[in-house]
Order: sequence, then C-alpha cells, then structure tokens
Amino acid sequence: MKFRIVLTTVLWTLMAGSSWCQDAPVSEATQECLDCHTIFHPGIVEGWRSGRHAAVTPRQAMAVEGSARKVSSAVVPESLSTSVVGCAECHTLRPSAHADTFEHNGYNIHVVVSPEDCRTCHAQEAEQYSGNIMAHAYSNLADNAIYHQLQRVILGTPSLVDGKVEIAAENADTQADACYYCHGTVLKVTETEVRDTDVGELEFPVIAGWPNQGVGRINLDGSKGACTACHPRHTFSMAMARQPHTCRECHIGPDVPAYKVYLSSKHGNIYSSSHQTWDFNNTPWRIGQDFTAPTCAVCHISLVADTEGEIVNERSHEMKNRLSWRIFGLIYAHPQPKSPDVTVIRNKDDQPLPTDFNGGLAGDFLLSQEQQDKHTRTMQATCLACHDTSWVQGHWRRYTNTIRETNASILTLTNIMSEAWTRGYARGLGQGENPFDEVAERKWSDAWLFYGNTVRFASAMAGGGDYGVFADGRYQLSQVIAELHEWVEQRRILEDQSAQP
Amino acid sequence: MKFRIVLTTVLWTLMAGSSWCQDAPVSEATQECLDCHTIFHPGIVEGWRSGRHAAVTPRQAMAVEGSARKVSSAVVPESLSTSVVGCAECHTLRPSAHADTFEHNGYNIHVVVSPEDCRTCHAQEAEQYSGNIMAHAYSNLADNAIYHQLQRVILGTPSLVDGKVEIAAENADTQADACYYCHGTVLKVTETEVRDTDVGELEFPVIAGWPNQGVGRINLDGSKGACTACHPRHTFSMAMARQPHTCRECHIGPDVPAYKVYLSSKHGNIYSSSHQTWDFNNTPWRIGQDFTAPTCAVCHISLVADTEGEIVNERSHEMKNRLSWRIFGLIYAHPQPKSPDVTVIRNKDDQPLPTDFNGGLAGDFLLSQEQQDKHTRTMQATCLACHDTSWVQGHWRRYTNTIRETNASILTLTNIMSEAWTRGYARGLGQGENPFDEVAERKWSDAWLFYGNTVRFASAMAGGGDYGVFADGRYQLSQVIAELHEWVEQRRILEDQSAQP
Amino acid sequence: MKFRIVLTTVLWTLMAGSSWCQDAPVSEATQECLDCHTIFHPGIVEGWRSGRHAAVTPRQAMAVEGSARKVSSAVVPESLSTSVVGCAECHTLRPSAHADTFEHNGYNIHVVVSPEDCRTCHAQEAEQYSGNIMAHAYSNLADNAIYHQLQRVILGTPSLVDGKVEIAAENADTQADACYYCHGTVLKVTETEVRDTDVGELEFPVIAGWPNQGVGRINLDGSKGACTACHPRHTFSMAMARQPHTCRECHIGPDVPAYKVYLSSKHGNIYSSSHQTWDFNNTPWRIGQDFTAPTCAVCHISLVADTEGEIVNERSHEMKNRLSWRIFGLIYAHPQPKSPDVTVIRNKDDQPLPTDFNGGLAGDFLLSQEQQDKHTRTMQATCLACHDTSWVQGHWRRYTNTIRETNASILTLTNIMSEAWTRGYARGLGQGENPFDEVAERKWSDAWLFYGNTVRFASAMAGGGDYGVFADGRYQLSQVIAELHEWVEQRRILEDQSAQP
Repeated sequence: MKFRIVLTTVLWTLMAGSSWCQDAPVSEATQECLDCHTIFHPGIVEGWRSGRHAAVTPRQAMAVEGSARKVSSAVVPESLSTSVVGCAECHTLRPSAHADTFEHNGYNIHVVVSPEDCRTCHAQEAEQYSGNIMAHAYSNLADNAIYHQLQRVILGTPSLVDGKVEIAAENADTQADACYYCHGTVLKVTETEVRDTDVGELEFPVIAGWPNQGVGRINLDGSKGACTACHPRHTFSMAMARQPHTCRECHIGPDVPAYKVYLSSKHGNIYSSSHQTWDFNNTPWRIGQDFTAPTCAVCHISLVADTEGEIVNERSHEMKNRLSWRIFGLIYAHPQPKSPDVTVIRNKDDQPLPTDFNGGLAGDFLLSQEQQDKHTRTMQATCLACHDTSWVQGHWRRYTNTIRETNASILTLTNIMSEAWTRGYARGLGQGENPFDEVAERKWSDAWLFYGNTVRFASAMAGGGDYGVFADGRYQLSQVIAELHEWVEQRRILEDQSAQP
Repeated sequence: MKFRIVLTTVLWTLMAGSSWCQDAPVSEATQECLDCHTIFHPGIVEGWRSGRHAAVTPRQAMAVEGSARKVSSAVVPESLSTSVVGCAECHTLRPSAHADTFEHNGYNIHVVVSPEDCRTCHAQEAEQYSGNIMAHAYSNLADNAIYHQLQRVILGTPSLVDGKVEIAAENADTQADACYYCHGTVLKVTETEVRDTDVGELEFPVIAGWPNQGVGRINLDGSKGACTACHPRHTFSMAMARQPHTCRECHIGPDVPAYKVYLSSKHGNIYSSSHQTWDFNNTPWRIGQDFTAPTCAVCHISLVADTEGEIVNERSHEMKNRLSWRIFGLIYAHPQPKSPDVTVIRNKDDQPLPTDFNGGLAGDFLLSQEQQDKHTRTMQATCLACHDTSWVQGHWRRYTNTIRETNASILTLTNIMSEAWTRGYARGLGQGENPFDEVAERKWSDAWLFYGNTVRFASAMAGGGDYGVFADGRYQLSQVIAELHEWVEQRRILEDQSAQP
Repeated sequence: MKFRIVLTTVLWTLMAGSSWCQDAPVSEATQECLDCHTIFHPGIVEGWRSGRHAAVTPRQAMAVEGSARKVSSAVVPESLSTSVVGCAECHTLRPSAHADTFEHNGYNIHVVVSPEDCRTCHAQEAEQYSGNIMAHAYSNLADNAIYHQLQRVILGTPSLVDGKVEIAAENADTQADACYYCHGTVLKVTETEVRDTDVGELEFPVIAGWPNQGVGRINLDGSKGACTACHPRHTFSMAMARQPHTCRECHIGPDVPAYKVYLSSKHGNIYSSSHQTWDFNNTPWRIGQDFTAPTCAVCHISLVADTEGEIVNERSHEMKNRLSWRIFGLIYAHPQPKSPDVTVIRNKDDQPLPTDFNGGLAGDFLLSQEQQDKHTRTMQATCLACHDTSWVQGHWRRYTNTIRETNASILTLTNIMSEAWTRGYARGLGQGENPFDEVAERKWSDAWLFYGNTVRFASAMAGGGDYGVFADGRYQLSQVIAELHEWVEQRRILEDQSAQP
C-alpha cells in the first residue's frame, strides 16, 4: 500500500509540471490529500476532478464579468485565490469554528463542510439559503409539539402492553433514517476513536447524526443546512441541481409528490424527451436556447434570461420569493409563512400551526395578500417567457380554485372528524390525546397529508389528470370523506341502539 | 422595450439576407410576429426555431418521395408553399372559421390552432385522428349519464348538510383541472378584454376553457382534439411523440398505468437503457436499425419498416386499427367499440355502457370477432418483426386468458355488490341512486377501475410480475373481493341477529 | 418473398468478401440463418448485429489478458473459436441435450438457449449463477407449501358458491403471466405443429411455458435460469445489465421496491443526472472514472476497480456473496440462507420458513454472524472507495437498527394477528386454514410484504425519507398496526357484549 502511495505521488508530481496543472494549480496541502486519497477513495477524488472546483481558481472565477459569474462573494481571501478549490481548501477552513476539527497528517481537518465554509466564495447563496425555510427544516419539525405527535406514532416502536398498543419513543438512528434524512440531523462530536488504517493507527472524531445531507442539518459550527443536499459531493455540480432528479430525493412520496407530478406534466414530457440536447451549465440560463421547458430549478431558484441575455428572474436560494402558497404538509393550504422559522407561528387556538382546525389563517405569521401577489408576479415572469397572459392567468385562476376547493373538502372532513372527537368515538387534542394515532384519525391525515396536496401539486404544475384524479387525487380524497362519514354514522346508529331500553 | 424591438428587427433583417434564411424563408407576416415575440416570448420562438416547421417549406417537404414524406396533403395552397411554417402561417389560417379571431397589429389572428388548421398540410393525420376515440374524449365522458355520476362524486364539492354528506356540482375550473385536463375542455369566447402591454393597450379575446391541450378539446372552429397533446408547442416534434414520456401525461395513474407498466417491461428496459443511440426522426421508422425495442408509438401509431425499407405497418392516428380489446375504464374488458363516439352505445339494460353489469356485451356496438382478429393481426405484424410465431401466439394466448380471468373476478365481485344493492346494504342504480358514492361501491370501482385493468396492462405489454401481482394487481384485486364479501356477510349476520326476537 | 431472400443472400455474400466481415467472420451456418431471418425478423438480426457477439470471435475475446477478458472459460471448442457468436453458434449447441431440438432447413435447432449453452464461453458466470438464489426462483416458490397458499389466494379464480367465496386453482397461463413471469416457468415440449410460412410448410415444437425469461426458468435441457433476464436478446449487453432499468423489470412493486428507492437516493440522483457521460462497457469497471455513483450492478455483481486498476470487488453472479441480510418476501428480515435452494429450510415449527412466526431464526439454514460479517465486509469494500469508515459504519449501524425495529413492529403486529387466530376471529394455520385469505390476514401481510420491507430498502440504499416514511413506509406500517389492533379490540367488545345475559 505504501508503495502505491509513493508511486502515485511521483506520478502527480510529474503531472504537476505539466501545462494542464498550471492552468488549474493544486495547492500543496490538497496535493498531500490527493496522494493518499486517490488510492483510498478514488470515487471521491475522481468526482472532484470532474467538477468545476478542480478546474478553476477563485481568482479565475471572479474574473468573469456580469451575471455569468459563479462566485458571488465580493472578496475571497488571497490565500485561497490562486489554487483550485481542492480537499484542503474546504476541509481546513475555519478550523476553530468546527467541533470536529482534528489533527490529520499535520493538518487541522474537519469532516463536515458547512454552508458557512461555502460562504467564503458563495456569500450570496449562503445568505439567501439561511432565509430559506429548508434551512430550518430540523427545528421546524423537531420543535413543533403537534408535528411531534405525528412523528411519534409513525416512527415510534409499538408494543402490546396489557392488550393496548403502546408506542415507545424512537431512537436517533430511526429518526436519522426517516424524517430527518431529509429534514437534517443534529451533528455532535461524542468522542474520538483510533482506527487501524492502511497507513497505521489514526485518530478520528466520532460524530453522532453522521452521515446526513438533510437540508436543515445542524452542523458542527452551529450553522444550518447542507449545500450537498442538492449539489452532491464532490462534484458540487450546478448542472445536477438544475435537473429534477435532485429534488426527487425528498419530493417523491404522496406527502410531496412534486417529482412524479412534474414528470407527468407537459413540461416534464418535454424535459424527458429533449434534455439530452440542453445546456445545463450556462449562466445565466437562457430560456428557449439552453432549455425548452422548465425544470424545478427554473421556476424556483435559477437565474434565467431571455434570448438577448436580459434577466427574466434573479437567482434565489430563498425559494419563498417566488411562492405565494404553501400547499402541503399541513391541514389546509395557506399563504407562505413570513419567517422561515415556523416554530414562532401560533393560530387563534394558540397552536403552532399556520391555520386552526377550521382553516382560519394565523394571519400575522403569513404573507399578506399584497406579498402573495408580489411572489406570484415574480414566478409568473418566467411563465410569461413562453406563455401569453391569458394562458398564465387561466392557469392561476384554476390553481387558486383548486386551493379553495381542496381546503373546502378538507374542512368538511375535519368537521366529520371533530364530531367523532366530540362524541368520543376518537380521542384527539380536545381530550388531551394524540390526534394522529387512531384509525379514523389516520384516514383524516391521509386526506390532507396525501390527497389534498397531490391535487394541489397537479394543479400547480399543470401535472395532468391522473395526479389530480386517480393517483392519490380527488378519487381518493372523496373516498376518505365517504369512509369517515359512514364510520361516524355507523357509530351513531350503534350508540342510538344501545341507548334504547 | 421599443428600442429592443427595433434592434431585433434590424438584426433579423440582416439575417434575412443571409444564406441560412434563403434556405428557410420566413414570410413577411411571420417576421412581424417574430420581431416582437422574440422578446416577449423567447421560449416559444426558440422552441419553434429548433423544429422542422422553421426549417423546411411545404414545397420542400412535398418534394420528398415515397413513405418518407411528412406532408400527407395532396395539395398545399400556393400561398403557404414557399415560406417555412411560422407563426402567421398557422395563427392566421381560416380566420372566419375561428371564434377567437381578433385584430392584432393589422393581422386577423386566432389564439387556438386546431386540427382543422393542421389539416392544411397533414390531411391524412387529421382525417385519421377524427376517427380516433380520443378525438371524442370530451363528449364520451361529458355526455354519458352513468360516467357522469362517477365524475360528480369525485370532482364535486362535499359539505355536511343535516349530518349527511351532500356533493355540490363542481365548477368549470375544477373540471378543467381534473378529468378534462386529458379529455379536453370546451373552448368558448366569452368576451374581449383590453390589456396594458409593453407596446401599449391591446384587445384580446377571453376564452373559457383555456388553456387546455386535451385530446378531445372542443375547439373554437367546432373541431375536436389538440395535436399539441402529443406534439407539444411550438416544436411540434414527431420525435417527441415517438417517446413514451408523451403518453405518460395521461397514462400514468392506476386507472391507466400504461407508462409505468411499459417501463417495467423488457421493452421498457431496452428503451431506457439504449434509446440515447436511437434515431427518433427517421421516416419510415426502421425496426432494429432506428430503434431496438418498441415504444408506445411503434405498436400503436407509427409507420414502421424492416431493414430493406418494406413497410411492416402503416401509420395510423386512429389507434383502434391495431387494437382488438378495450381493457380499461369500464367494468369489464370488451371488444373495441365500432364507433369512436361511444355515447351511441346501449347495453341490453339500455344503459350507455359496452357491457351490462353481468359482463354481457353490447354486441351491436362492438367489434365482431372477425374484426378483432383483423386488428390483432395488424398489431402482430410489428411483433413478428422481432419474435417468432410461437412467441407471439404464446403471448396472445396469455393475454386473452388474463382478459377472461380478470373479467371473471370482476363478475364475482359485481355479484357480491349486487347482493348488497338488493339487500339494501347500499343504494345503487336499482334504487335510483348513484352507484359510486358509498364506501362499498368505491371498493367495487377500485377493483375494475384500478386493479383489473392494471393486471390486463401488465399482460398486454408483458409488463412483468409486479404490476400483474403486487402493484395494483392481483394481490389488491383479490383483497377487495375478500373485503366486500366479508362486509356483506357481516351485514347479513347483523341483520339476522336483529331479526331474532 | 423468395426473391427478397435471394437478393439478401447476394448482398450478404458480397459483404462477406469485404474487410469488415473478415474482421468478424460469420460461420456458414449462421449465414444461412441470416439469409432468411434478416427479412423475417429484422429486429432480432439488427439487435444481434449491434452487439459484441457479432463483432468478436471467441478466439479474439480470449486473447484479452487479465481482468478485462469477458470470456471466462479456460477452453472454448475449436469449432466455435474462429467465427463470431451468431445464430447457429448458440441455437445448434448441444442438440441432444435440448428437448426442443428440431430439424430446420438441414440444421438441428433448439428454440430456447439455456445457461448451459452460454457456459461454453462463460463458464464462471454460469457456475456462479447456478449458486444464486435467483436460479432457484421457480422451485423456491412452487415447492413451498406455505408460499403456495399465498399464491393461491392471489392468482386463483374466485367465485361465489353458496354465498362463500371459493377460489379455484389458477391455470398455467395465469401463473406465467403473474408470479412466474419473474420467477420463471417450467418449459416443456408438448407436441409439434406444422405452420404455413412464407417459405412453405415447416414443422416446429410447441413449448408449454413459452415465452418466458424468468430468472429461475426450468429449461428444456433441465438447467435453471435465463441469462436473457438481464442480458436481453439478441444484444446480450453487459452495459444494459449494468443499468438499473434491467433490475426494474422484477424489482419495482411494493414487495420489492428496489428500483424506486434507488432512483430516489443520492446515488440514484447522480446516476440519473450524469450517466450519459459514463462508460458502461469498460472492464473492469473503474470507480469514479467509468461511473461516479453505484448502480445495482456495482454493489451486487460487477467487477469494480480503482483508479489504478486494482480490483476493489470481484465479479459475482452469485449475489449473496455481498449480502448479509434478506430483507423482503418473508415475515421477518433474517440472515441470508446458506443454500440457494430454500425449500430445504425448516423453522422450529417445522415450517418451510427462515423464521418462525415469532421471528426466531431457522438458524441451521441461515448465515452465521461470522458469515454475515464477511459478506458485509465484501459489500463495504465498494462503499469505502467513495466513503470514509465513519460514513460507512454510520450507515450500517442505521441499517441494522432499521432491521431490528421493523422486525419488532412486525412481531407486535403478528402477536395481534395471533390473538385473532386464537380467539377465532380469523382462521389460520393453527385452524388448518389458509393464513392469507381473510381481510385481517391481508392487512397483516401488507405490513411485512410491503411496508416493513420498503422501510428496509430505503435504509439499505439510503433511499431517502419518503420511502422510509410516507411511500409504503413507516406511516403505513404503523397504520396497519392500529387497524388490526382496533379490529381485534372491537371484536372482543362485541364478544363480551354477546356473552352478557
């Protein structure tokens, strides 16, 4: 093994003298990393080598003028400017800020690179992302008492105790394998351990919550999020994040079927049939020339321009800027929350929910109509680059109608559920009990967690009839209403019968 | 903004003198459209520019000899022959026929181009399509009293009235967002409106039912269908329609899972793994050379030829020509209807259904055995280009067996449902009530609307074990039968108990 | 037609004199096949022509040194060495061994080529595959009395007899169209038939169970399996088998959702976004250079190497070698069986199952902890080419936790089911009845056949939150537990009520 490292070093040193490497100079520290890790972790190294970070120095990147520039920081430290962005450039940054920094072959390395590290070159993106609701995905779930009751009945370990199902709290591994895979885990250094490696004994930090790339990960420098959720290691590709497959990782289930609905839309068809000829690397991303139908990123994030290079929409990593409604995850669709930290929200019943159980808005915490309209106009600017006003307005009128209609259906269902709670057929919040653990309650949550929102996604993305009707859509939504209604009715009949003498 | 239009006009005029534009001459009228819309709608313009319509004049297209010719009309008006097919060529065609024609910068423009417009060059395709059941998708659904009862309980707005769930009729936006997204809406000009645009105030027609690209759209010239359902604007690509993603838009849900089943078949695997090397543009489409496994279009529509150019199957936009059975959407699989207008069908109980509730065929309205055999042989001609006779016959024997067996299972289930109706456990057509609005009735419709047909699709496309068994297949079909049977049995027991003194 | 054959023969003979054909010499026998079948079955012939078999002779293939060699047999018969591998080379091999051998234009042809034929050149792969559990997929299902009860209630034909649902045995066509599509059918020559073909009357064998390409097909030479399950005819591509679409054919449903989960993982995203630039043909397959994320084949089968060509994992067609756990298809996850023939297994209750109903292992028949650890280390060698030890260990710790937790949930549910059986609310094995035919029993099988295993797949492949939670995951698993528990409780209450005077 040691011979291989020496040989590799020699080869790299020879190559370092070549013109290729003068164009993309590798720092001495990164070279030391590569000497070993080319052998130990060829996948990582080759991934990095194929990316932009390995090809361009920050100084070269900053020499690009105008909106094509990919480095948004006004200044990048001189020490980082003239080498390509390699292993050491990121993994030795801000060592004292990272709880997982450890001594490794003479360098202070940290395992987990955070958005605060990326901010060195990508200040604007890091700043925007910190205002993105995704950056708060951990605490928005973990610190919400009502969501937590749903989490418990889904993730907890059930057992029979005296003929009853009792659900014990799930452990951290189950959490990290389930909800917090996407929402992000809390990373924490618990100890250090010595491992016997191919180059002898080495000491490493042990990190609870690792591995994880959830969008709201709590990092070892206290920062929130993981840029690698969408820009996977170690290519950190913009082109990849612009493709819908990236979003699929967390947006595929019935709770948030964005990917399935998108691919089944006209836009998705055009993407699937023609993306092989698109340019996913150009900046700004030119409508009609670089791509002929929107991907997720086009509508929600990317800097897009028209044929003449005029900007149609500015890049934003705070996705709310183009969103007026929040259509999934809660009982009713409602205007986007003002703050990405939704733990501050209280509805009129003092619950940490954006609406009450009757659909009333926790208005102080949600976008005003005026703010919604502004976000809608921002989104529509992209639509209007391909569609005329009547098309766009017609689409939006239907979407608003669908939000209103699905909310109305869910209200009818919630009224049925409330009757069941009031009459004692089920025990919910009013009875001081978990509102998600009984069969009837689960049918109720099926309706708003899966069907109501699938119908809205199908509408929002013009995603076709099937997701709006038969595939977790209006067919299933109306079915659940019938089921819950017949159940309550039957319970009432039985009650009446047993009340008779 | 006006400066940009002037600049663009100058650039286009310069380019118009170049050899590129002499090869693909743009009419003066289209040039005027492009002058503004290149700026206002770059996506549309670039899409069009990348397509065949922008590259070839009808005269050039008609000069192609033999089966490679893409223009099927014997004659194309002289005035349209020598310019490429641009904005004005389609949007100013037959102005008096279109209710949405309006004056726009000196031209009589209509918003919605219809199959009757496309017929100018593509007469054969327009004619065939008018005989396709898809062209009648609007009225086949909207004008069928029984289907309409299903539509109502799925799309309608439920509310609680005196403890009962009442379902109010859905509005037009809900319809357009759901069933009629695929089936097609009715377009109607309701008024005109003045909009303040970048180039001043302009007047536009307001079109109810717009936007829509459903296969049976009722157009503003009275024609039916939307070529853009499969050949998306403004590329109008044949290559796109030949890929399965196009069909996905309306054939993805459990009601018609063609896309999912196809991709999970051997054919789908070969497509997914190798289509990058296929030629989707060649005409005729050569088996084995241009493609190595069928897509949806190969089996159902395309003009396909063998290695020596001999035609294996003629192009048909009337898909029934290669279909013997109709395997979805109705209670039982049955021979294809004779007429694409299925509202004429009456079964022996005088219902507008191709079978009665016991599976008896409305024979006068369906293909005869002889006609079915002819359609089967047409389809098999394509199969036989890759598979020998024993393979094809073995496949077909299994498919016919599966149609028989699923119909038998559905008959057993319908008998159970009928007992429930007779005994008064549910209220259906016999009781003058909606047969789709109760929980038991919904389980019954799950069986034939989702499971029976998924099993048949899996068989028809040799789509593998999972869709035939565990993914909305025989597992779920047999489960529903057990559920409904146990429910009826339990009701009977309760009835017997309460009948006792 | 005959003229076309003559013409084709002439063209082929002319081409046979060209340098292209000297490089890839076609045997005289194969040439005779091609003369007709180029016309009759252009799809097959073109498919073959595009593959490696048509381009390289076994002698050329064997001249490749080292791990890049694709022919694993030490010796290939001289008679087969100097022509490319064409129609005749495979379809006339070992004629007396095949029950379907028939005289065809002077040759003894057999229809179904088997792994024993492929073994001629690919001895190692055939040998390994015979030890693969997939090779035994037919009898592992067909000869297991308990599985058979599940098969019967899913595939059988239900009818109402005296108000009861009776399920008649399914026929062979239904079997071949369902479970045995993937598991493999039993092929058997039943008779011969004369067919009127374009070249006159010809006699062919009639083969029951044909067509089929299931992984455990019982062939006409008595061998097991179909190489074409993963290397589709007639290209027999390695590149195709390396793509996940191949595995999709049998691993897409809720019973074994590997494909869906993979595509929704980070690995799947990288594959979907970047595989267009990968090299699927290189051998050995180089991590990071030929591909940047694993496909199914990378982890389970392929010969993979690092940047310097050092082997990271040996090719294996006996997939168990890298697997420690069996996570689907049975009530509980358990160590991989020792023998690919799992019909030999008996649990402590003498049932042919790897665990008893309480999760106790049929230990003698399953991998020991030590053997499991060895398989785990083999798998992890590939992981470690991209991930450091802490990442890999963290992943594995979560996976083991998820196996433990899902097994615990299923045990709780099975205890509820057992109570139902004991109390007589349902009739299972203890009552001498089918344990899968009642509604409650089906909910129980939903849990372990669909939900428990989906959660495990999501964990095994780091497949994201949705498949672990909302898409057939923990949400549905916990829901079924609540449903079955409430049902048993309700039955008990009713029982108590009727027991009262």
